[in-house]
Amino acid sequence: MSEPHPHPLYGKHAATLDRALTAIRERAYWSAFNESPSPRVHGEDAAPRGKAAFEAYLDANFSLDQPGTTGWVGGEKSPFGVPLDVRYPRPDVDALLGAATAAMPAWRDAGPQTRAGVCLEILTRLSENVFELAHAVQFTSGQAFVMAFQAGGAHALDRALEALAYAYAEMTRIPASARWEKPAGKGEPLRMDKTWHVVPRGVGLVIGCNTFPTWNSYPGLFASLVTGNAVVVKPHPGAVLPLAVTVKYAREVLAEAGFDPNLVTLAAEAPSEGLASVLALRPEVRIVDFTGSTEYGDWLEANARQAAVYTEKAGVNTVVVDSTDDFAGMCNNIAFSLVLYSGQMCTTPQNILVPREGIATEGGHKSFDEVAEGIGAAVGKLTGDPARGVELTGAIVNEGVLERLERARGLGKVVLDSRAVVHPTFGDAVVRTPLILALDADGEQAYGNEWFGPISFLVSTDSTEHSLEVFRRTVGRRGALTAAVYSRDDKVLDDVERAALDVGVHLSANLTGGVFVNQSAAFSDFHGSGANAAANAALTDGAYVASRFRIVQSRRHS
Amino acid sequence: MSEPHPHPLYGKHAATLDRALTAIRERAYWSAFNESPSPRVHGEDAAPRGKAAFEAYLDANFSLDQPGTTGWVGGEKSPFGVPLDVRYPRPDVDALLGAATAAMPAWRDAGPQTRAGVCLEILTRLSENVFELAHAVQFTSGQAFVMAFQAGGAHALDRALEALAYAYAEMTRIPASARWEKPAGKGEPLRMDKTWHVVPRGVGLVIGCNTFPTWNSYPGLFASLVTGNAVVVKPHPGAVLPLAVTVKYAREVLAEAGFDPNLVTLAAEAPSEGLASVLALRPEVRIVDFTGSTEYGDWLEANARQAAVYTEKAGVNTVVVDSTDDFAGMCNNIAFSLVLYSGQMCTTPQNILVPREGIATEGGHKSFDEVAEGIGAAVGKLTGDPARGVELTGAIVNEGVLERLERARGLGKVVLDSRAVVHPTFGDAVVRTPLILALDADGEQAYGNEWFGPISFLVSTDSTEHSLEVFRRTVGRRGALTAAVYSRDDKVLDDVERAALDVGVHLSANLTGGVFVNQSAAFSDFHGSGANAAANAALTDGAYVASRFRIVQSRRHS
Repeated sequence: MSEPHPHPLYGKHAATLDRALTAIRERAYWSAFNESPSPRVHGEDAAPRGKAAFEAYLDANFSLDQPGTTGWVGGEKSPFGVPLDVRYPRPDVDALLGAATAAMPAWRDAGPQTRAGVCLEILTRLSENVFELAHAVQFTSGQAFVMAFQAGGAHALDRALEALAYAYAEMTRIPASARWEKPAGKGEPLRMDKTWHVVPRGVGLVIGCNTFPTWNSYPGLFASLVTGNAVVVKPHPGAVLPLAVTVKYAREVLAEAGFDPNLVTLAAEAPSEGLASVLALRPEVRIVDFTGSTEYGDWLEANARQAAVYTEKAGVNTVVVDSTDDFAGMCNNIAFSLVLYSGQMCTTPQNILVPREGIATEGGHKSFDEVAEGIGAAVGKLTGDPARGVELTGAIVNEGVLERLERARGLGKVVLDSRAVVHPTFGDAVVRTPLILALDADGEQAYGNEWFGPISFLVSTDSTEHSLEVFRRTVGRRGALTAAVYSRDDKVLDDVERAALDVGVHLSANLTGGVFVNQSAAFSDFHGSGANAAANAALTDGAYVASRFRIVQSRRHS
Repeated sequence: MSEPHPHPLYGKHAATLDRALTAIRERAYWSAFNESPSPRVHGEDAAPRGKAAFEAYLDANFSLDQPGTTGWVGGEKSPFGVPLDVRYPRPDVDALLGAATAAMPAWRDAGPQTRAGVCLEILTRLSENVFELAHAVQFTSGQAFVMAFQAGGAHALDRALEALAYAYAEMTRIPASARWEKPAGKGEPLRMDKTWHVVPRGVGLVIGCNTFPTWNSYPGLFASLVTGNAVVVKPHPGAVLPLAVTVKYAREVLAEAGFDPNLVTLAAEAPSEGLASVLALRPEVRIVDFTGSTEYGDWLEANARQAAVYTEKAGVNTVVVDSTDDFAGMCNNIAFSLVLYSGQMCTTPQNILVPREGIATEGGHKSFDEVAEGIGAAVGKLTGDPARGVELTGAIVNEGVLERLERARGLGKVVLDSRAVVHPTFGDAVVRTPLILALDADGEQAYGNEWFGPISFLVSTDSTEHSLEVFRRTVGRRGALTAAVYSRDDKVLDDVERAALDVGVHLSANLTGGVFVNQSAAFSDFHGSGANAAANAALTDGAYVASRFRIVQSRRHS
């Protein structure tokens, strides 16, 4: 079998791919997709065109022309109270998986370069329609517009490219072919010509989440696709549209490039139909990417045994407050991370551990209550003006978060109560500000579990040493995606870093400016580590991509 | 936490490591450890010193000075009928795992370079004692001396270095630290200093096999160790000594380098004590490497859920015979691969698919029976002289193989019967020549499963096309580690290669010279693919090493 010529799309995007390959080796700052929604970047018509495209989807069937459509399914409820009424194809699972499987051999045989070129073209197409994507993310997840544009658009595309680059590097770290020549004493050397083929594992299943339908799905989607697998995208029933739009453009580009569009299909369902479980157990499905609850992630890991399963689940993100040289900066930074998307990020801090005797600051000693007041006041300031506040908080993604917020209120002493806010533009939007509770370290039964949503705990400990014990125990048990420390003592910083290594959580130290613990930068920060219970993999590293394909060799005498 | 200085052993071995890193990128011919047992390579005293060292272990306690020894356990039976009577420490599992766990933090903090240097020093130490190792492999596995020296010594060390190189490349594909600087419009850029730490998963468990105690264990052992994990080595009760010797030298080097020798420990047991299962389910054990039966490999995959499990199991290695330009070369090559270690390699061909109407050759048409006779005669020639034959066949590893050989005899028409051979040196050695049976393709119930040992089937098919169907179906169902094709038709070669990609098995075409389907060369050929039921991973590729550690990040403002 001779090696294929790369598709022209490879040449079109080779420079971008090459830059991305450099970025993942250096992990300094780089970004391929501009995070600014400014018309100066995207042109005057991009925003209105995206809005119009979004609106055209509403109250209509979302046609995808994929096989096995047996009817239509919908029911997304916008956290902004906007009626959506989009109806998606309800798939016949046999037909969908059959088509996905049939599409793979030609995709496999096209080789890594062609696949990378086509995938980069899909990212480019999505980027050209990023406003459409941003509106879809905003009105399904409840993110405010700018965040939906950034996290749901530009940053999601950057993460996709990052995963794609790791996968490309992994596929090409060995040559496509080589001559092997072994000396044989005085005789003729043994000579063999060897070829190494990248073969896909099988169908990849991407199970999306409600809060970050694109950001959390893209790395798995593109890592699986570029390594030769077909991908079935199963969105959260509450956030179908962003992934339907994604699938639409992916299919469009695949077909244009001469490949079977069934390499990417959508598997939509109504709430509680259990389609993810049906798909995840099918023998054709050999890769599963999931973001969501610990309970369901654990179920997938235990039951989808025929597949490589990558899960991002829940954890107890923790901040250790020991001391600071910038008390206001610390309070503002923590407050911002609590307010952003009203704490509905998997990276939002939940437990803030503060010695009950208080902490040293540049302005002298601050008591526990003063620290609580400082953070509470900063949150209050960010959310005080509804018009500005809602651009940070967005809306509450679903009923589950509201119920949890009600249940949480009794868990401690209220430092700052959650407030309902009337959204100035969307009157039916469900907006809540953060709830902050204080409780003692012995209340681990409460703060030791994840309370997803605008809920945080200021936990009073005996000392920073005690905070570290709590940190090790709770994160060791439940995992975490993020951790932070505030200290002006290098020994404390080192001790917390060592503890973070032991429990396998990424650590941010002394964030007081424009970087926040709940934000990670593509091509530099890793998201999750795979080293604790909150996730069994990091997004976008070697381990995340290496098992999505296999190498099959052939050899013959030269 | 500041970066550590590398240990001087890193500098000592940096050139070798660098050459190995080049080799895994090129995958052309390279070898670090000389496969010749000649005194010109190793010095006059190496062989007698190794023999004496081996003999000194016999009828004695093998002292390892590891914690938690509760008594002594032994019972290896040499296939050569030589009394061994070595007794090994019986470990207390809690003490062993406790010590292994306690040893890890300092090993983690030493960093990739130091760990690579220390591991290379272990390989060097083993190489300096390779004759001792070869004797231990020979008299436990039943391999003939030269094979024990090569496969059990030099090639095992090459595979270890190959795995180590992949792991080192994986750990260092991202920098240890970087400055991140994000432009912020007209303001000062955001600047962060980021550090990435390699953290181990936990304790690695290596479960050895009876036939290749070192070759199959070394890649996992060194891949886990160099990535910061402690390793518990659980040998097959029939082949403890080679791994006890390995553990002894590993501990010696670790202690000399200033590390806790409990990073590598031995967990010996008597037959049927079930120690592997006890260890594999312990929460401390986060990596399992196993070579052996499909049944137990599947059990590990299903039950050792807390661990990353790498298994090499059984399969039905297949040869598709379509036509040849070198009939004698084909028969001799196939025959050699059946005779070598009397078919007790996981890579030995089992099913040889031949059209019942015969094949075209350079000497005209050959009937099915002529092909059978040709291979049978070539086997007969290789084994006709007992003194030369036993240097190829070695001895039969255990009772299980003998019993299987008896049961197999009734499965088809005997083309060549197995013979018992009296070993000229070791009168009590259990030596058997290969059994070759002919049967029709409809006898898939027999040849569709693995018959490990000197048992092969010549399967008559309707045509090469039919052979390909059988190949796809049997390998698709049961897996295979190797496949071969003989054809002078390029289209057939391409068709078989495509089928090999579909069922995920490495393919050798038209081997008629000094390369055999059951041999794979380190740094060039992959062993296993992970793409079929015979193994869930390939030895020594990116996927094999990438999940043995995690990256944990810390960041702070510059």
